[in-house]
Amino acid sequence: MAKALTAFLLVAALSLMSQAQAQSIEIMPGGSRPTSKGAAQTFIGPVSIAPLFGTKDQTRITVGRVTFEPGARAAWHTHPAGQILIVTDGTGWVQQWGGKKGEMKAGDVVWIPPGVKHWHGATRTDAMTHIAIQETVDGRNVDWMEAVSDEQFGG
Amino acid sequence: MAKALTAFLLVAALSLMSQAQAQSIEIMPGGSRPTSKGAAQTFIGPVSIAPLFGTKDQTRITVGRVTFEPGARAAWHTHPAGQILIVTDGTGWVQQWGGKKGEMKAGDVVWIPPGVKHWHGATRTDAMTHIAIQETVDGRNVDWMEAVSDEQFGG
Repeated sequence: MAKALTAFLLVAALSLMSQAQAQSIEIMPGGSRPTSKGAAQTFIGPVSIAPLFGTKDQTRITVGRVTFEPGARAAWHTHPAGQILIVTDGTGWVQQWGGKKGEMKAGDVVWIPPGVKHWHGATRTDAMTHIAIQETVDGRNVDWMEAVSDEQFGG
Repeated sequence: MAKALTAFLLVAALSLMSQAQAQSIEIMPGGSRPTSKGAAQTFIGPVSIAPLFGTKDQTRITVGRVTFEPGARAAWHTHPAGQILIVTDGTGWVQQWGGKKGEMKAGDVVWIPPGVKHWHGATRTDAMTHIAIQETVDGRNVDWMEAVSDEQFGG
């Protein structure tokens, strides 16, 4: 009986704690999220990725800031629920499979619809930084494909 | 018969056009989305709002860049699916109902859970700019409440 009561109280307390956390505004200080290098399987050239906002129970949205050095780009990929890019610095390229390369500059916003095969990155001569916003569906917010060749990247 | 065929072809063509649009990457140039002033019913003091990304069929996400001059703030409000703030410039305050005022600075990221009554804005002496990311649920991404009094705002 005492054991059952203890277990009940513990569950009730944990449930209240988790509710309280779910109801609290969180301020995540700059520099508290370590920036990583883009993996060689999915990026060509020097790319740094700052994870601004990770997966939470209450939202599917994730946000990162990505910087591509000149010549650097992501591999071809798709996003299950699409992606919004807010270009904050420099000049970059974006291209969908079968389409023409487009230029994006600081201040531009880019919408990539769900399932559209594409790549984005810097230009040959300029670096580019964007904030990337996407949603996690069934545990994934990106599906990676083959590398963007030098020929595809162009100059 | 001819009329029915024409109608069928028209519907088929429109459907293909809409599909093609849904499958195309969109580059929205900076400056193509006019910045507006925060309405007096929902903001106190000078606030400018740049709509970076509006509602689309394929996503519930909307994104805006909001600049609060010193002393300016939003009214108390909630977001049906929560909100992510990425502070890009200056120093601001954020507070949830019944909680303490928190400080947020350029580089910080803030999570406001769904349904949590709160306000955010500049501090008394500094301006603050953030990118705000939220989702539209049943046509709304915010529910506005009463103004933040000078006493609540503090100094």
